[in-house]
Amino acid sequence: MSDRKLRLGAFIMATGHHIAAWRHPGSQIDSGVNIDHYIEVAKLAERGLFDQVFVADSPGVANRGDDESFSRYGRSSYFEPVTLWSALSAVTKHIGFVATASTTYEDPFLLARKFASLDHLSKGRAAWNVVTTGSDQVHGNFGLDAHPDPEVRYERAREFIDVAKGLWDSFEDDAFVRDPKSGVYLDPSKLHAVNHHGKHFKVSGPLNLERPPQGYPVIVQAGSSEPGRELAAATAEAIFTAWTSLAEAQAFYRDVKGRLAKYGRRPDQLLILPGISPVVGRTEAEAQAKWAELQGLIHPSVGLGALAPFWPGEDLRRWNLDAPPPYYPEKPAGSNSRHHVVIELARRERFTVRQLYEYLAGARGHWVVVGTPGKIADEIQSWFENEAADGFNVMPPVLPASLHDFVELVVPELQRRGLFRTAYEGTTLRENLGLDRPQNQFTLARQAKAA
Amino acid sequence: MSDRKLRLGAFIMATGHHIAAWRHPGSQIDSGVNIDHYIEVAKLAERGLFDQVFVADSPGVANRGDDESFSRYGRSSYFEPVTLWSALSAVTKHIGFVATASTTYEDPFLLARKFASLDHLSKGRAAWNVVTTGSDQVHGNFGLDAHPDPEVRYERAREFIDVAKGLWDSFEDDAFVRDPKSGVYLDPSKLHAVNHHGKHFKVSGPLNLERPPQGYPVIVQAGSSEPGRELAAATAEAIFTAWTSLAEAQAFYRDVKGRLAKYGRRPDQLLILPGISPVVGRTEAEAQAKWAELQGLIHPSVGLGALAPFWPGEDLRRWNLDAPPPYYPEKPAGSNSRHHVVIELARRERFTVRQLYEYLAGARGHWVVVGTPGKIADEIQSWFENEAADGFNVMPPVLPASLHDFVELVVPELQRRGLFRTAYEGTTLRENLGLDRPQNQFTLARQAKAA
Repeated sequence: MSDRKLRLGAFIMATGHHIAAWRHPGSQIDSGVNIDHYIEVAKLAERGLFDQVFVADSPGVANRGDDESFSRYGRSSYFEPVTLWSALSAVTKHIGFVATASTTYEDPFLLARKFASLDHLSKGRAAWNVVTTGSDQVHGNFGLDAHPDPEVRYERAREFIDVAKGLWDSFEDDAFVRDPKSGVYLDPSKLHAVNHHGKHFKVSGPLNLERPPQGYPVIVQAGSSEPGRELAAATAEAIFTAWTSLAEAQAFYRDVKGRLAKYGRRPDQLLILPGISPVVGRTEAEAQAKWAELQGLIHPSVGLGALAPFWPGEDLRRWNLDAPPPYYPEKPAGSNSRHHVVIELARRERFTVRQLYEYLAGARGHWVVVGTPGKIADEIQSWFENEAADGFNVMPPVLPASLHDFVELVVPELQRRGLFRTAYEGTTLRENLGLDRPQNQFTLARQAKAA
Repeated sequence: MSDRKLRLGAFIMATGHHIAAWRHPGSQIDSGVNIDHYIEVAKLAERGLFDQVFVADSPGVANRGDDESFSRYGRSSYFEPVTLWSALSAVTKHIGFVATASTTYEDPFLLARKFASLDHLSKGRAAWNVVTTGSDQVHGNFGLDAHPDPEVRYERAREFIDVAKGLWDSFEDDAFVRDPKSGVYLDPSKLHAVNHHGKHFKVSGPLNLERPPQGYPVIVQAGSSEPGRELAAATAEAIFTAWTSLAEAQAFYRDVKGRLAKYGRRPDQLLILPGISPVVGRTEAEAQAKWAELQGLIHPSVGLGALAPFWPGEDLRRWNLDAPPPYYPEKPAGSNSRHHVVIELARRERFTVRQLYEYLAGARGHWVVVGTPGKIADEIQSWFENEAADGFNVMPPVLPASLHDFVELVVPELQRRGLFRTAYEGTTLRENLGLDRPQNQFTLARQAKAA
């Protein structure tokens, strides 16, 4: 286990992971559309030797609830991820960029192209977080009256990824000759049209962009539903997930790693990265005070707004905030699997409504660790060394303040313990993550034919 | 006329405008995917106080002809424009970015979103060159067996632009309150869904991104066909066009400016920017030698490859290079109108096949001016002062070398004559181009209702 390296990503969405972060003095209040803020945060994450930065995404205005709750919700306007990362690629050197994009609502040619472009712009630092998109505010933006069913969305996702890989392989790695003397620029026999004709897509290719430096972007998957796990086992190289106890995380880790063999893959070809939202204090008391301050910024109408999707049709304002919910919702078909984990926890712990919304809104279903750098490093080490995680998706509650705390206080502690790098190992994200560069399918076919 | 300002854009596609540019020692041979090259060129254009930089685009590998000609064609792999400009926005301060994108093959929500994102990233320097896409290598990438007819493409373009504007107006300019004390982030009454339901698109909105700094990106149109002119008159704020004589350019200028009134627009709301490809020498002889060197780099098979689309089914290799073509093609329906201008010129001038391909391939249908800085400034001044142009789209034959020549030698000459700025006037592209920031349609509707 000594050569296993801890992987760290930073979730740097807007004002921070905490729902009331925008009200906190340590956040940048307009950060969703403030490029100077993102430059500061990306450089900070790179100073902390993070593997990658990540933003979530959905092509629509997020669940609004009623106007009162929506008016207090700080995350309704933000940069499109691939354009944001393209900008940041020009002012950073090492850090990788995980862009979320939907296989249900994007087009495979245009998506393959923009990710290939980002990989070239960043010289091999692009990753694609593949999502099938489940939020209700999206389908109308694309002319649909409802989302396709989850099974259809996942089937489409699998085919979409195949098409994208075929397009990324359009030019073999040595297709470009570029000899000014002879006047030969490229070898046309090394350009291939994927000519895909499947159930969901018909795409000829080739892509008008040479093979990305990484072969293709690192493929990331998020979510822990059954079809999500299977898609990840088949296609993903990293998975973002949400667990609040070691035992749950271990069960997930075992389950997903166990699915890889049937796809001919090794366990080290898929990195499992649970979320952790660290609230760092120089003392335990300082950390607890920081957390209490943040939770106190959650307006009740925002808290109830975060609960509303679980109890559709219910007027939550009638409920006693200081008693448990009068009843618990059924697990809704096709909904965000991460959310359901929280409801199960609330039922088990008999949370009051306020406790539940504080837990849900404050952590958004992820693992919050409040404490000293040593305590946070202990938790990270425990999960890392006990088959619960290959690394973490660090979700600073307030940006840039909490990321600054993590970089200044927790990273050095992880380095002292020999868990985390003291310099970047490679130049591409794949090299830093220890992931292979995939071979070109057309080159392999040619070699197989010749053999 | 004294307060009219000359507008200059730079076409900075890959190795340069000339078809053999990649073989020239003054070019960066892999520039299609070399971000360091683009950073150098964009900074150079900004040093020269250009209003904007521009790249053409088509979502497919460009017309390849036969393998022999395609193997010598240097423009088959290049960055996607919006990602490229996003990267360059982070390392420049003033210059505008014109990204080409297709209304036939892109989705209105995703396109509106990425351009809004670019406008925010660049703090108001985005422009959209609206194209309907006519090249044959594209439709198969999007599951179609053929392009839609030109009338359908133009009809769709008009509707697409309307939808995009509706999405850009989703949030009124003062929708965001962002008051940490009260906990109010935005005013929901200032968020609007466009709820478009038209012939080609059904899009609910709203966009998940606040109004772009420029209201919406500057709308650019290229091409000079009848439907192109009408679309430009209705919607465009700048038009790229190609003419090789003052008289033709004047006729076009009069025609397009004359169409504006029926859309309730003023002549100064649409800037007409013909292309000019300047070959600059300190002496006339030096300039001519530079041009001859470049033209000599065109391999005959590349030259014939450039002619092939005009004579479909014909084997041009059988033709005598030093005689005129044995016959001229009919103007093909829906084809690139700029190309037809060249064929007309060839017929009139009785060009040999070699002269025609050198003219066509070397200039790509645009106006090439070979000479001293004074001669080039004379030509620019003549078109600008005689109602043929509001400015120019400068197409340096070789990048970065020819742009360097233009910035060092021609720009100072234009400044000496009082034609061109000596400092940027504004902070956004609209301000530099002297274009109004459009008002929000929902704000206007509210004001009309209140009045």
